[in-house]
Amino acid sequence: MSNRYISINHQLYTEENAKISVSDLSIQRGFGIFDFLKTVDNKAIFLEDHFNRFYNSAKEMNLTIGVDREGLKASIDQLMEKNKMPNSGLKFILTGGFSEDGYTMTKPNLILTQVPFEIDLAAFDKGMKLVTYQHQRQLPTIKTIDYLQAIRLQGYIKENLSDDVLYHQQGSIRECPRANFFIVKDNKVITPKTDILKGITRSKILSLEINNYTISEEDFTLNDIATADEAFISSSTKNALPVLAVDGKTIGDGRPGPITRKINNELYRLIGLQ
Amino acid sequence: MSNRYISINHQLYTEENAKISVSDLSIQRGFGIFDFLKTVDNKAIFLEDHFNRFYNSAKEMNLTIGVDREGLKASIDQLMEKNKMPNSGLKFILTGGFSEDGYTMTKPNLILTQVPFEIDLAAFDKGMKLVTYQHQRQLPTIKTIDYLQAIRLQGYIKENLSDDVLYHQQGSIRECPRANFFIVKDNKVITPKTDILKGITRSKILSLEINNYTISEEDFTLNDIATADEAFISSSTKNALPVLAVDGKTIGDGRPGPITRKINNELYRLIGLQ
Repeated sequence: MSNRYISINHQLYTEENAKISVSDLSIQRGFGIFDFLKTVDNKAIFLEDHFNRFYNSAKEMNLTIGVDREGLKASIDQLMEKNKMPNSGLKFILTGGFSEDGYTMTKPNLILTQVPFEIDLAAFDKGMKLVTYQHQRQLPTIKTIDYLQAIRLQGYIKENLSDDVLYHQQGSIRECPRANFFIVKDNKVITPKTDILKGITRSKILSLEINNYTISEEDFTLNDIATADEAFISSSTKNALPVLAVDGKTIGDGRPGPITRKINNELYRLIGLQ
Repeated sequence: MSNRYISINHQLYTEENAKISVSDLSIQRGFGIFDFLKTVDNKAIFLEDHFNRFYNSAKEMNLTIGVDREGLKASIDQLMEKNKMPNSGLKFILTGGFSEDGYTMTKPNLILTQVPFEIDLAAFDKGMKLVTYQHQRQLPTIKTIDYLQAIRLQGYIKENLSDDVLYHQQGSIRECPRANFFIVKDNKVITPKTDILKGITRSKILSLEINNYTISEEDFTLNDIATADEAFISSSTKNALPVLAVDGKTIGDGRPGPITRKINNELYRLIGLQ
């Protein structure tokens, strides 16, 4: 156990005291939403975007956060001040509340956690490998806590000597459990648009301008990956991370590509790293 | 708060002390399985069937229960002895464990809860109403804690003046969130067989013998419900409970049917009530 603090319903607890009743609907029924962002030098990156998504997820799941953005920001500030952890991953979880019958929604519980996190600048050149799996996430556009399939596949990923799984639906590419997926091909950078979680980092990439390349949402298939020049995933923690192989097949020349590198550098610039 | 006890990892806690760390993977990632049975006069009904399913769910989700059936039974007995609650609902939840990174599976946590439960003999004659919703549960044959869609639809059910929701996939009937669905039609009793959780009560019904009626698994559609003679749901708590209307349309003559009554009485007999 570390000395870090966790906020539960706007109250701070040491990590070892940060517990909730087993009657909570996250434990009873897997019912909750969350959001996650990084802080760099005590600055919460793209906070407004994450707030927009978190409040929208709550609405879609018929959950009430109980405080407005100012109130939520105050609790985040309180936590960050206590933890003194300038570079971190900050997570807000909202559950269905304590439920006497283990089923009926009650007053939601809000949990804020912060863990140390430094952007791994060396990760880019190492890249990563993916293995595919047919799966369509339920309620894909809402950021729920449902990672049943992803956690279940942790062994499958290892067995396939991969770093993460890429979901497809009958060959149509979707996303990784915690990241969006892009390919670079024919002077285009494309990322699936159907039945996925639209990541904040993904949206930042879609608004970039890269010479001679169009960057857009466009569905594609497993076959398109085989002939791609480059592939990468995007997320708050990974930025744009090269995918060097999918299902054991090398992408492009098997090394991080120049367009992925440009995009990653642009993301670093957006968060004030360069 | 009641005075009831809850077992966490084979230790008893009062309800108000039954808490777990927010690092548990059920809270972080909705990752867990469970099973549920009723006790009647201190007898755990169909315990072997529930054990079979629970151990199978664990295997399918790559979770280890940590004790064999005898060990699990001992913890159940310990809880029942302490609670002195002869008629109850008994739930066992197994989560993905406390996870430092909020993602990687660790040693699972086992939670046993018991709440007072009496079979509601008057419920049969009242029957119930269902409203349909297009949804396919993920990993449908495994009893996971995932009820995201079900809890989300609690308002929808109320707005439609119904008691529960019936899932279908493009018109092909599946199940209710916590119950299987049957119709009686043309001297047949049928229940869907595709992509559903195969309930213990459902399996008991499939093994019954009712004069002149075949009882079997067979997929059917929303249209078949409209012309059914009777409809009912089955579950450990509801036994066979008449469905009198679906989407506001009356089933049969709108009253509990004779075949449903026969089946319900047979279930009562099986659990020693008659």
